[in-house]
Amino acid sequence: MNRVYNFAAGPSMLPVEVLEEAQRELLNFNGTGMSVTEISHRAKPFMAVVEEAESRLRSLMNISDDYYVLFVQGGASQQFAAVPLNLLGKNNKADYVVSGNFANKAYQEAQIYGDIHVAGSSKADTYTYIPKNLDIRSDAAYLHITSNNTIFGTRFKEFPKTNVPLVADMSSEILSREIDVNKFGVIYAGAQKNIAPAGVTIVIAKKSLVDDAENVLPSCPTMLKWSTQAKDGSLYNTPPCFSIYMSMLVFRRLEKLGGVKAIEEINEAKAKMLYDFIDGSKLYKSTVNKEDRSIMNVPFVTGSEELDAKFIKEATQNGLCSLKGHRLVGGMRASIYNAMPVEGVKALIDFMKKFEVENA
Amino acid sequence: MNRVYNFAAGPSMLPVEVLEEAQRELLNFNGTGMSVTEISHRAKPFMAVVEEAESRLRSLMNISDDYYVLFVQGGASQQFAAVPLNLLGKNNKADYVVSGNFANKAYQEAQIYGDIHVAGSSKADTYTYIPKNLDIRSDAAYLHITSNNTIFGTRFKEFPKTNVPLVADMSSEILSREIDVNKFGVIYAGAQKNIAPAGVTIVIAKKSLVDDAENVLPSCPTMLKWSTQAKDGSLYNTPPCFSIYMSMLVFRRLEKLGGVKAIEEINEAKAKMLYDFIDGSKLYKSTVNKEDRSIMNVPFVTGSEELDAKFIKEATQNGLCSLKGHRLVGGMRASIYNAMPVEGVKALIDFMKKFEVENA
Repeated sequence: MNRVYNFAAGPSMLPVEVLEEAQRELLNFNGTGMSVTEISHRAKPFMAVVEEAESRLRSLMNISDDYYVLFVQGGASQQFAAVPLNLLGKNNKADYVVSGNFANKAYQEAQIYGDIHVAGSSKADTYTYIPKNLDIRSDAAYLHITSNNTIFGTRFKEFPKTNVPLVADMSSEILSREIDVNKFGVIYAGAQKNIAPAGVTIVIAKKSLVDDAENVLPSCPTMLKWSTQAKDGSLYNTPPCFSIYMSMLVFRRLEKLGGVKAIEEINEAKAKMLYDFIDGSKLYKSTVNKEDRSIMNVPFVTGSEELDAKFIKEATQNGLCSLKGHRLVGGMRASIYNAMPVEGVKALIDFMKKFEVENA
Repeated sequence: MNRVYNFAAGPSMLPVEVLEEAQRELLNFNGTGMSVTEISHRAKPFMAVVEEAESRLRSLMNISDDYYVLFVQGGASQQFAAVPLNLLGKNNKADYVVSGNFANKAYQEAQIYGDIHVAGSSKADTYTYIPKNLDIRSDAAYLHITSNNTIFGTRFKEFPKTNVPLVADMSSEILSREIDVNKFGVIYAGAQKNIAPAGVTIVIAKKSLVDDAENVLPSCPTMLKWSTQAKDGSLYNTPPCFSIYMSMLVFRRLEKLGGVKAIEEINEAKAKMLYDFIDGSKLYKSTVNKEDRSIMNVPFVTGSEELDAKFIKEATQNGLCSLKGHRLVGGMRASIYNAMPVEGVKALIDFMKKFEVENA
């Protein structure tokens, strides 16, 4: 079958057993005689998929009944607008931590809708660290963070302590580590990094925030209102059925593996292996502040653009794919999400060793 | 394999050979060693998918270079907001034809953003016909129609003649019949009825409308701006990759079948067969004005709710599925989109005959 190790930042690797199950039943889901992509979203067999996906996610993340769990479309980028549109109705002030490229995009989008303040930024230092000692306005409607920065490879190891609702884009680390959902007002995440094929976005939002209609700006499109999907169990209009189905399969598998705690241990081990090797190497260098290192996205450089290009080319020839770093950082980036097996990281390190020797 | 005939209004039947091809390469797309759902949207193999999907759609619908072809998310429901947000910037007047449930939703959504006028409505008559003799304001920014009404089973056989840009929701009939794209300012369509799995929405928009930034309302979210996706070839953020890939496969198949002209003939024949049978029957009745009948969605009733329920139950037992009519109409509805084979319609008619005899 010749599957490769795919280190792409998203869309990215999916568990092979999930793909195999989807493949087996692609023409006949659960004995319906239809593909899961053909079933009406209001038919029982598909509504059961949405319900199972929601209940498994609630169980995996220990999400209480105080929160809605929504499956929406448009990716995190769409939530960059949805967040202020749903939360700035009463008070148009919001604070943002600008810790990366997407954090900055979220900040820029919010400026369309309100008085937006930078609570902390590492932009001037090319986002090589997570801003600390935040300046949060006490009357802000919310504080927005990007919990893991996909491009730059940093993450909030600890989340900011604040009295205003905390809103987090967790696209590139959702389900990778245990978090206390109760500390957040809203969590959102595009699925295409750590969950499922692109097309579905998860929104976990405190009911008290969503149910208060005064929080919503009058110009908010119906489809971007969280309350729209909350009222209809994510079935206000036709949802991205296949991506929700795949999410359900991934959630099932994660439960079998032992849940978030179990995968967190594996993720920590994978990241440690890779960072330890980089730190001990003479050729490769990590690009970010050590204490802020992401365990999902690991950028590294050789210091020579020519050598970086050679590395990427030869790695690809060895079945280690999509290692090219984002143009804003250059070099390489290994995204090692939940679906990347330990063997993939080991194969990468073996190749890195060999390449270092050959190019010493 | 036990596939059924699926008459659902959307998500709905897909061509079996397309599902089979997707199944074959679900774990290894085009020799990449990755699923098409795992490939980075900015990697060449996936960009080739988007390019092929766009160019085949351009060819199938004869779309000139004066138009953008965009693949977006959120369904037609999201375009209900995107249309006024992208077009009311200079002049906040728009006119709507309220010919069905979704047409009415589009009309209601537009009212958030401007001075919206009803150019024609059949709401008072439960949408049993297409409004004619429209009252269109000469200074409207656009006239909005829903070209085929999925729930009620009517369609614009001829499109309104107007000097203002014509905007059409074609979700339930795109690619089912030849149309002259040049007569439209904007055409949009959720894919899940006549194209591909839910998750992608097609927008075909005149470049002159999109390129004029003054047409856009200041409150328009970046992701809902058509210009955002136009500038980035539908790759501003991660698109719904699997649905775009499936669209490409469906477009390929449609070209092989002879294109839109060929499928239109088949669709006309399928619809004629079914309507002729209904008109000749003593049990079944069509619910709409004869001249406005859709060739995609065919509602019919027996006049007895009890008998309708019996019909649906027994049809399902015979592999004729999802025939229950929308709650706003009741009775039955057979959606016979491009992917429904002639044999499916024949099997339905055979069953209807048998059921009529048994329940005379």
